[in-house]
Amino acid sequence: MKICVIGLGKAGLPLASVIADSGFDVVGVDVDKNKCEMINKGINPIPEELGLDELISKHGGKKLKATWDYNKAKDCSVFIVIVPLYIDENHIPDFSILESACRSLGKIIKKGDLVVVETTLPPLTTETLIKNWIEEKSNLNGDFYLAYSPERIMTGYSISRLKEFPKVIGGVDKEGGQRAYEIYKNFIGELSLVSNARTAEFIKVIEGCYRDVNVALANELHKIANEIGVDFYKARGYANHEYCHIHLPSTGVGGHCIPVYPWFLINEMEKRGKFDYTRLLRIARELNDGMVEYWAEKIVKKCLEYNKPLNEIKICIKGITFRRGVKELYHSRNLALAKFLAEKGLNVYVYDEMFTKEEIEKLGLKWIESKDADLIFDCFSLRLIVVS
Amino acid sequence: MKICVIGLGKAGLPLASVIADSGFDVVGVDVDKNKCEMINKGINPIPEELGLDELISKHGGKKLKATWDYNKAKDCSVFIVIVPLYIDENHIPDFSILESACRSLGKIIKKGDLVVVETTLPPLTTETLIKNWIEEKSNLNGDFYLAYSPERIMTGYSISRLKEFPKVIGGVDKEGGQRAYEIYKNFIGELSLVSNARTAEFIKVIEGCYRDVNVALANELHKIANEIGVDFYKARGYANHEYCHIHLPSTGVGGHCIPVYPWFLINEMEKRGKFDYTRLLRIARELNDGMVEYWAEKIVKKCLEYNKPLNEIKICIKGITFRRGVKELYHSRNLALAKFLAEKGLNVYVYDEMFTKEEIEKLGLKWIESKDADLIFDCFSLRLIVVS
Repeated sequence: MKICVIGLGKAGLPLASVIADSGFDVVGVDVDKNKCEMINKGINPIPEELGLDELISKHGGKKLKATWDYNKAKDCSVFIVIVPLYIDENHIPDFSILESACRSLGKIIKKGDLVVVETTLPPLTTETLIKNWIEEKSNLNGDFYLAYSPERIMTGYSISRLKEFPKVIGGVDKEGGQRAYEIYKNFIGELSLVSNARTAEFIKVIEGCYRDVNVALANELHKIANEIGVDFYKARGYANHEYCHIHLPSTGVGGHCIPVYPWFLINEMEKRGKFDYTRLLRIARELNDGMVEYWAEKIVKKCLEYNKPLNEIKICIKGITFRRGVKELYHSRNLALAKFLAEKGLNVYVYDEMFTKEEIEKLGLKWIESKDADLIFDCFSLRLIVVS
Repeated sequence: MKICVIGLGKAGLPLASVIADSGFDVVGVDVDKNKCEMINKGINPIPEELGLDELISKHGGKKLKATWDYNKAKDCSVFIVIVPLYIDENHIPDFSILESACRSLGKIIKKGDLVVVETTLPPLTTETLIKNWIEEKSNLNGDFYLAYSPERIMTGYSISRLKEFPKVIGGVDKEGGQRAYEIYKNFIGELSLVSNARTAEFIKVIEGCYRDVNVALANELHKIANEIGVDFYKARGYANHEYCHIHLPSTGVGGHCIPVYPWFLINEMEKRGKFDYTRLLRIARELNDGMVEYWAEKIVKKCLEYNKPLNEIKICIKGITFRRGVKELYHSRNLALAKFLAEKGLNVYVYDEMFTKEEIEKLGLKWIESKDADLIFDCFSLRLIVVS
């Protein structure tokens, strides 16, 4: 049995490598020809992923063959779709990459083949859009197995996650779930078969919602603590215990996952006219996104204490990635904060240990060593530091 | 050193007993003369509290003397205030019991005495209202120690909690905190001295806020799951792990604690004009309180499937206490649901294993054995069961 993994990105490549390492022949499909060539030469294109170097050098071009041509995957009988899904500025998912992958897959799929989707999706997508896209391009009418198993990678730790972290899988119908489960358990350490695909989709999304709402709560409580003169971090340390998990405050929530997933549910409920079913999710989103303005106000207030015009104070925004230690700027609220202050005509610089001066400048921002600034705002500790 | 505990209720009596059991002479003050007499005879007035029988029978009338007369506590040098605080229908705390206790205490307090408040309070109350009430009735001008240590009882398990559960204490000033800490560590197993009284107040309140917001989230996600045909409980089971703690859905949040504490912060921020600092807390409160109408709709919808007039269907609301197994109706949303349906002219009955038929009828509700109803709504499992 040959397995095809469609999408060799941060989530797909570790998965494809782990499957190859479990003894299967894997065809990896990706639009990036350069990346495919690297993989086939045994060179790891995602060096920050722990353990991936070893797997790519062992299997790249051998048990794991990368290609940009779907026809090379014709003799596969299992297809795993793990391509990105973005949302636009109106929070609507842009399915174009996924649709294109499914339609290409539709052209080569055969009767009895299995498709498992791993991309995090709005619940119900697998059984509706995905199924239709595949069927429209194939001659099959439901004569293939279809299941959903959300990826649970964490950049840098994806391989150990695949081996140890609980993962769920659910079929669009019972047979699809059962078949997918039997194949997946060959390479996934902790696998559970759940009722159906929509349950598996929902599971992944609500995890993100829990995080988003709890970061919003931490941000709200942090504001209140600050207002009444209580050290939030100290209070949090004592409040948290086995049954209390107050999160850390922040400039908001960034990245491809947590700020996106609540919209999947909000959109679906609004489509159904159930506007009052997502009030908390919506407020949490607004609150987290609004933290940029909150922190901008704090920074400007501190600038007013200086004995010089606002636009002469060198402000350093320290740390612009969406999470500490991950070189990723997607929906980064720290980057948004730097840009917001710059748009207001302030003298904003940026420092981030993950980026060179040149990379910062390419983003249209000014680079500075923190020590040369007058005022530093550390985006991860939320501390304002007066240098001079 | 003699210690006075003011308030011998569900929180105060276990604490007074544990202090007596640690070797201190304790004077317990309570307005309920009957209760004082029981205690002095060694009879436990709160039999459901595990381990309390033994302590009361051992110390009642001996090391623990109960009285309704503050003058009997004149020779105490430590005063612990642990009386109830309620909020009115506008969510404003009614401080009358606390004020009266503090003023009575003010009449007997001496220079160098220590006061520790345990009642859960809006942050800043100890250093403002409490301090003023005590000082106004005494001749002291700050010549006493004042600290705050929130009770963390859980009905039924209060004694083990006092021995094992982490507890914080903080002074209005540094000396007050230090002195209170030294005395409290004689009878509290896991005690931490925190920065000040307001931090200790805040710690207790945000724990409740975490719970309220997370129950609201569970309720919102449960509604969505129901709408899209996903079994919420199953999904939740798979979504939860070390970093994800999605709560259980419910008819809302009842009892003296969780539905009350968010208002402490909301009120304080509104007083300061910071209306946008408590958006999430407010929505969570509204969402939880609104669950009564949500479930009422579900019940009525199910009734419409019956082949008889709505008001002839015997509806049994099963479980009316605010929490399973605790005989307490304060702000019970289950009771509110039964009353709401009754007010709408439906034929509502109630069953609760904690209450007799007579007790139910005293509440102005009709009692029924669940099996005799046509339709049962189980408030704890949120299941609608069609009997006939």
